[in-house]
Amino acid sequence: MTPVYLDNNATTRVFPEVVEAMVPYFTEQFGNASSIHAFGSDVGGALRQARRSLQALIGAEFDHEIIFTSGGTESNNTALRSALAANPERNEIVTSTVEHPAILSLCDWLEKHEGVTVHRIPVDKQGRLDIDAYRAALGPKTALVSLMWANNETGTIFPVDGLADLAHEAGALFHTDAVQAVGKVPIDLKSTAIDMLSLSSHKFHGPKGLGALYVRRGTRFRPLLRGGHQERGRRAGTENAPAIVGLGKAAEMTMATMTDDMARITALRDRLEKGLVQAVGHCFVTGDPYDRLPNTSTIAFEYIEGEAILLLLNKQGIAASSGSACTSGSLEPSHVLRAMEIPFTAAHGAIRFSLSRETTDADVDRVLDAVPAIIDQLREMSPFWSRDGAAPQTFDPAYA
Amino acid sequence: MTPVYLDNNATTRVFPEVVEAMVPYFTEQFGNASSIHAFGSDVGGALRQARRSLQALIGAEFDHEIIFTSGGTESNNTALRSALAANPERNEIVTSTVEHPAILSLCDWLEKHEGVTVHRIPVDKQGRLDIDAYRAALGPKTALVSLMWANNETGTIFPVDGLADLAHEAGALFHTDAVQAVGKVPIDLKSTAIDMLSLSSHKFHGPKGLGALYVRRGTRFRPLLRGGHQERGRRAGTENAPAIVGLGKAAEMTMATMTDDMARITALRDRLEKGLVQAVGHCFVTGDPYDRLPNTSTIAFEYIEGEAILLLLNKQGIAASSGSACTSGSLEPSHVLRAMEIPFTAAHGAIRFSLSRETTDADVDRVLDAVPAIIDQLREMSPFWSRDGAAPQTFDPAYA
Ligand SMILES: Cc1ncc(COP(=O)(O)O)c(C=O)c1O
Ligand SMILES: Cc1ncc(COP(=O)(O)O)c(C=O)c1O
Repeated sequence: MTPVYLDNNATTRVFPEVVEAMVPYFTEQFGNASSIHAFGSDVGGALRQARRSLQALIGAEFDHEIIFTSGGTESNNTALRSALAANPERNEIVTSTVEHPAILSLCDWLEKHEGVTVHRIPVDKQGRLDIDAYRAALGPKTALVSLMWANNETGTIFPVDGLADLAHEAGALFHTDAVQAVGKVPIDLKSTAIDMLSLSSHKFHGPKGLGALYVRRGTRFRPLLRGGHQERGRRAGTENAPAIVGLGKAAEMTMATMTDDMARITALRDRLEKGLVQAVGHCFVTGDPYDRLPNTSTIAFEYIEGEAILLLLNKQGIAASSGSACTSGSLEPSHVLRAMEIPFTAAHGAIRFSLSRETTDADVDRVLDAVPAIIDQLREMSPFWSRDGAAPQTFDPAYA
Repeated sequence: MTPVYLDNNATTRVFPEVVEAMVPYFTEQFGNASSIHAFGSDVGGALRQARRSLQALIGAEFDHEIIFTSGGTESNNTALRSALAANPERNEIVTSTVEHPAILSLCDWLEKHEGVTVHRIPVDKQGRLDIDAYRAALGPKTALVSLMWANNETGTIFPVDGLADLAHEAGALFHTDAVQAVGKVPIDLKSTAIDMLSLSSHKFHGPKGLGALYVRRGTRFRPLLRGGHQERGRRAGTENAPAIVGLGKAAEMTMATMTDDMARITALRDRLEKGLVQAVGHCFVTGDPYDRLPNTSTIAFEYIEGEAILLLLNKQGIAASSGSACTSGSLEPSHVLRAMEIPFTAAHGAIRFSLSRETTDADVDRVLDAVPAIIDQLREMSPFWSRDGAAPQTFDPAYA
């Protein structure tokens, strides 16, 4: 039984071509990119090419607007701390209630221990940002707005273009966590007002342990990691050459086929959602029905536990998740679904299916085959289900 | 002509066995280690094993004393910031004048912008720490001592064991940058008083972009990167599983043969040094003649430019360096050699040969063949050499 992998928002399989591109930089062109001898200067050229490939994927105007980091988390931490350090006359951050922990737990810390005021803008039941609350939170003390491009759990897309313009009207910097957006939606930074953007290589078939922070030319910046002069003095540490080359290759491959891939993935995702909602009662798709990532579908199955669904899916070789991997293992429903005020009986049974360009028709068939029986089986055992009878009122904003 | 690589303190070739161990984690067991499905839980086991291999290499008492990071720079930045944040009643750091930029440039920033007082302990002409100055700098305000185990330029080893005891007497934490020591000298942390230790995988034939910070159990700690719960909440970000597995393999291989390898490397290094000092006049080996890394030899050739030597060596396929890679490209003599008060006419011509377990007798022969002619050629053109005549007084603390 070939395994079915539908947890691509947690991480993706590295493309074999990407691994192939990386391997020579481990054992042959392994020199330190900052060295002047041949082992190092060859590497420099490869890094420049990778930077340009990523530049193309995100539509940056200049390749030196890209700073390579160790991942999305480091990029996010760098962006927030840089904005605060570079603008000491402002000490407020505006963000949302549905950001990734790499934003929210840093904000909690900054608020409790470093005198920063944090405004967490709420979302509605479809995960859409409350724009009025956002406007009201912006002010002369706002150092930075940090709002994600696409939500990792529901796939909901925030209108970052317009949100960035509003931030600028208040004189604030605008950062977006685009870790889930890059490679899935077209991005053309030079035509936006976004000042900083975080991305992570392993979310689009590149290697783990590498990310980037885009910093628009002219943006005041303070490094998080200090030391050598790498990345024009903005991020110290020996360049991770094999991984940078790998990210470059993944960016190229992504660019080349993104439009077609995403059309196909959207069709697969829609078939998956419609099939499940039809076959299984008392379930609904979460997130913005109109503006959502093509690959992401979080479905809330009422009256059962998501972890139990995952375990039974796993037995059939199907990998999905019950929220962000970072918080799995906990029995708390996800902070994103809570922020959307999805009732506990539904939020507990939410499963995220996240597709990739490697997902096939057969994968979707397997899920459509497996899930209805699993849900039936679990509901038979659920105290909530049997106590409430077979047809309690459903909460289903999108498909009611 | 096979190239000769003697720049192993900048970075090492990744062992082919290490790459082999890593590859399956890119394309097969590629899951997120924090996920509960099979793609992820397999990875968890591999990470535990890698952590134990590293634990053995550094003699840590518990495997959870190891926090994986993105490299030596991140480990150093984390250690310093953690010590300051966790001990707010103390605001002084004691370090040395010969630390790596990943310590010194952070200290400069902390001093200028964050109200930290930094004591930079000087060294003598052989690069040995001034112990009296060290004792005098310690006090009730010292939050942290950070002193490197082995110097990246000269290989000089600091007696970190005893230095850590002195720090504890003052109630301060003790951190050591052991990036150049791990894999080259025996380390048994459980028998020392060291509280934190930084290391970097690519300095002992593991992959770039991965390091670790050892934090002794019970040490007060504050994460630098906040977000998910990885590394027991001490370092957020999706685990870099392939690289961690690679580091584990490199640690195992290093452990297995370190004693023999280092004896062989010491012999090669000594042959290289003696051969050069005999064949070339007006040059000397820098650093502590008694307590030095087995693999490191920085030789100061008087009256010429190190960069010119490197370029001519490079033409003959020999890679070495003129100081730390991080500062190459600049014409300033290295801060380490300046701290040792090596005269400019000698410091400018310093070349670092750094060997590894892959260095052969033939490599050393090639250098012994090439260098004397190169030095002659350059001295012919040197204004200092011709102006001063053929035999100016030499400065040669170790071989005079
Ligand atoms: C929206 C979002 N931001 C940030 C991250 C963190 O990225 P990384 O794990 O590469 O540090 C993730 C993924 O885990 C994510 O989905
Ligand atoms: C002594 C020392 N500390 C720290 C570092 C930084 O390590 P990394 O480049 O892995 O961040 C290096 C190497 O560059 C080093 O030699």
